[in-house]
Amino acid sequence: MQATTSDRDSYRYEAVEKHIMAMIDTGALGLGDKLPSLRMLSVNVGVSISTVNQAYVELERKGVIEARPRSGFFVRQRATRLPRTEAAASPMDSPRPVTRTGLIQNVLESVGRTDTVPFGVVAPGKSLLPLKELSKITAAVIKDQPERAMSYSPIPGDPDLIRQIAFRSMEYGIPATPHDPIVTAGCVEALYLSLRSVCRRGDTVLIQAPTYYCFLQLLETLGLRAVEVPSDPEGGVSPEELSHALKTFDIAACILAPNFNNPDSSLTPDDAKKEIVSLLAERDIPLVEDDVSTDLHFTPKRPGTYKQFDKKGLVLLCSSFSKTIAPGYRLGWVLPGRFRQKILEIKATTNVCTSAPTQMAIAEYLRQGRMERHLKRLRSALEKQMDIMQLQLRRHFPDGTRVTHPQGGAVLWLELPGEVDSVELFFQAKEKSIGIAPGTIFSTMDKFSNYIRISCGHPWSKELEQGITTLGRMAGEMVHSE
Amino acid sequence: MQATTSDRDSYRYEAVEKHIMAMIDTGALGLGDKLPSLRMLSVNVGVSISTVNQAYVELERKGVIEARPRSGFFVRQRATRLPRTEAAASPMDSPRPVTRTGLIQNVLESVGRTDTVPFGVVAPGKSLLPLKELSKITAAVIKDQPERAMSYSPIPGDPDLIRQIAFRSMEYGIPATPHDPIVTAGCVEALYLSLRSVCRRGDTVLIQAPTYYCFLQLLETLGLRAVEVPSDPEGGVSPEELSHALKTFDIAACILAPNFNNPDSSLTPDDAKKEIVSLLAERDIPLVEDDVSTDLHFTPKRPGTYKQFDKKGLVLLCSSFSKTIAPGYRLGWVLPGRFRQKILEIKATTNVCTSAPTQMAIAEYLRQGRMERHLKRLRSALEKQMDIMQLQLRRHFPDGTRVTHPQGGAVLWLELPGEVDSVELFFQAKEKSIGIAPGTIFSTMDKFSNYIRISCGHPWSKELEQGITTLGRMAGEMVHSE
Repeated sequence: MQATTSDRDSYRYEAVEKHIMAMIDTGALGLGDKLPSLRMLSVNVGVSISTVNQAYVELERKGVIEARPRSGFFVRQRATRLPRTEAAASPMDSPRPVTRTGLIQNVLESVGRTDTVPFGVVAPGKSLLPLKELSKITAAVIKDQPERAMSYSPIPGDPDLIRQIAFRSMEYGIPATPHDPIVTAGCVEALYLSLRSVCRRGDTVLIQAPTYYCFLQLLETLGLRAVEVPSDPEGGVSPEELSHALKTFDIAACILAPNFNNPDSSLTPDDAKKEIVSLLAERDIPLVEDDVSTDLHFTPKRPGTYKQFDKKGLVLLCSSFSKTIAPGYRLGWVLPGRFRQKILEIKATTNVCTSAPTQMAIAEYLRQGRMERHLKRLRSALEKQMDIMQLQLRRHFPDGTRVTHPQGGAVLWLELPGEVDSVELFFQAKEKSIGIAPGTIFSTMDKFSNYIRISCGHPWSKELEQGITTLGRMAGEMVHSE
Repeated sequence: MQATTSDRDSYRYEAVEKHIMAMIDTGALGLGDKLPSLRMLSVNVGVSISTVNQAYVELERKGVIEARPRSGFFVRQRATRLPRTEAAASPMDSPRPVTRTGLIQNVLESVGRTDTVPFGVVAPGKSLLPLKELSKITAAVIKDQPERAMSYSPIPGDPDLIRQIAFRSMEYGIPATPHDPIVTAGCVEALYLSLRSVCRRGDTVLIQAPTYYCFLQLLETLGLRAVEVPSDPEGGVSPEELSHALKTFDIAACILAPNFNNPDSSLTPDDAKKEIVSLLAERDIPLVEDDVSTDLHFTPKRPGTYKQFDKKGLVLLCSSFSKTIAPGYRLGWVLPGRFRQKILEIKATTNVCTSAPTQMAIAEYLRQGRMERHLKRLRSALEKQMDIMQLQLRRHFPDGTRVTHPQGGAVLWLELPGEVDSVELFFQAKEKSIGIAPGTIFSTMDKFSNYIRISCGHPWSKELEQGITTLGRMAGEMVHSE
């Protein structure tokens, strides 16, 4: 039996209606969004234009969409179903992750979230970023040179930005020419490129403990093994310990932070840095240096880097503007020493080159000489925020809690009484929308299970105070319940 | 909506132009033949005399015909019909390590350079990018929301952009919810993340031959091996060949381009796509799909994707805005299927998240509904540029040269006489600041050593004409010197 023409038509326009409703329900079409043109939907769904039109008229009648003269159709109703949130995908009562990467992913989930008390992510609070200056400059360079902004940058980066980076490096006593820096999407990309250029799957890498958890995640995803030497909050990495490790293990490369190591803020003295570079040079072992925190020194003078003692091109210095100017711009760099060609190869196969508009903007920001003044203000704010945080921790955290006293950076490292399980505390805090980083993720060993890292990037506020009070109470309850 | 008079006219004279070109291509009009009179063609085709005149003037400008005083118009071009490139039918080899990186780096050196005739890099010419609109939008969103622009995006990407990507995918019949897309720094990053999430060092990956050289470079830097199945410019990838390869080798994953494969512009029919997805599903083999060229279809309807036939979450669809809106913004995405968690892990250790300001700008550009109009204009420009390029190649390249006739994309794939060594030609051209991509870099085997890829992204100009003339002469000299 054949359906009548009008039956078929009615079936078809209802199908189109359902298609649109599904898009609204899943959130693919949001409130105020423009609907596809009649012609386009007609081609894509394979029905006539008049059928699509009929569906749109019907949806308009139902008040779901509205026609605007000479503009088309727009969604005027909220989605009937609330789209599930990302968080709902990983319910709190699911089995706890066992690998570091799983746990780290949990910590990283709060990146970019504005509904979480920001003790977990290391980035300056918004009031400490040069929002007005930099947004003005960004808008101006893009309007001035849209062609340059929308075209591929050269693989090593925008020449103006490269020059500015080389210039600043030289000012800080780091040997660099305008041919050295390679621009990357943040410091993490610089570290990733460096590590891939000096290691192969199965290699062993020497790290300090505790170390930035991203290194552990990198090692894990690249199939590398770790050997740890202690990082002392007061003295950094000891050349003796390192030398011992070099004699004991077959080390392919090292990753070290020269100053304000994340999370324990340790600073390795310049003499020790020099000795370490020389020990590694004897064995031709590359050193990946994470210099991202050094700009945040509270000391009058900027502490030195490993790179400045490098005579053989074995040190790959990695840094970024994420902890100082604009985390969301994702701009960093590497001074690659003798590994330049290899890094360019890997960069080309990872994302070809770095986003152009942000490179142009930061180059111009630096060219105008705005960086130093900004850094001065930022350092002084961070130092103040750390002072307040230390006071508050003393007030609200259980007896026996010990805290670092950094000379720079933006984080505090807390040793809690032994009964406190930092992973448990992390999940409890997460439930209250408070972000922290549990000590366990900063080492391959379990010796930091009663440590946590607290970020001090944000100016003190009622919200932060509430967060610290709650955290301290939770930690206290873990002590007393034992 | 009604077309304006001038739109209609322009459409009509182009139709006349095509009519004449078809006569030349099929040999109906030979070298030196007189063209039909204006009046006669006007009557036969049913357009005005002035429209025919306009078409003739245009063909004269392009060098296809010439006017002789008091005699009329004559064909001045060689009228050799250029047959389609033959299927790259080849016996399948054992998996081989990939070693093309050195040569590819040479090709990539021209990325972002403005001093090179741009036949080597696939990106739309600047006049085809929405420079004004997009720079205005970018400046506005950054000034409106500097906090959001300078803060970390969530790892999967800016929620507004994710929603827009999901919306467009659904419009094209690709199943996606606003929870699926992960934003990346261009399509290359999407491919890199996908490949790393489905393979381990030493694995064998099935690719089509020829294939986008970046895949070979990725395989090489990740220590993967390649098995090639032929890509036929007329028929794409054959399910039979693929099935045979799956039975013969231990394949860990596939990388395939559904449409307008770079470089041979081959399109695999939707039926074949469906069969291929089902063959892979039987064996649980992931398919990394490079969908970056599909938006550039000259056909009325957008061709299908592998993803739309994916029922098991095994297809990872990768794409970007680099070939359509803004190469320099470095924005792409992956619809990751069942590999979402793994990809987010690797993304976090590669660069944490994608640059925020460009994500906000493109999300707003899409929200304002500007994409489709732009694509329409871009496609029509690319089709026209390809037409001109084909004419020019015929005019300046040696006899025996054969060229593809793509239905979309932005590149032509040339088979030159066997005596021509494309790598030699590449280096000679480079010396004259002309960029091309030599055939050798598109396969692990050497069978494309007399092929080159020519990008048609830029509107025709004196500079391009000069470049093609020089290239053709160089190729001709290689033939004659034998």
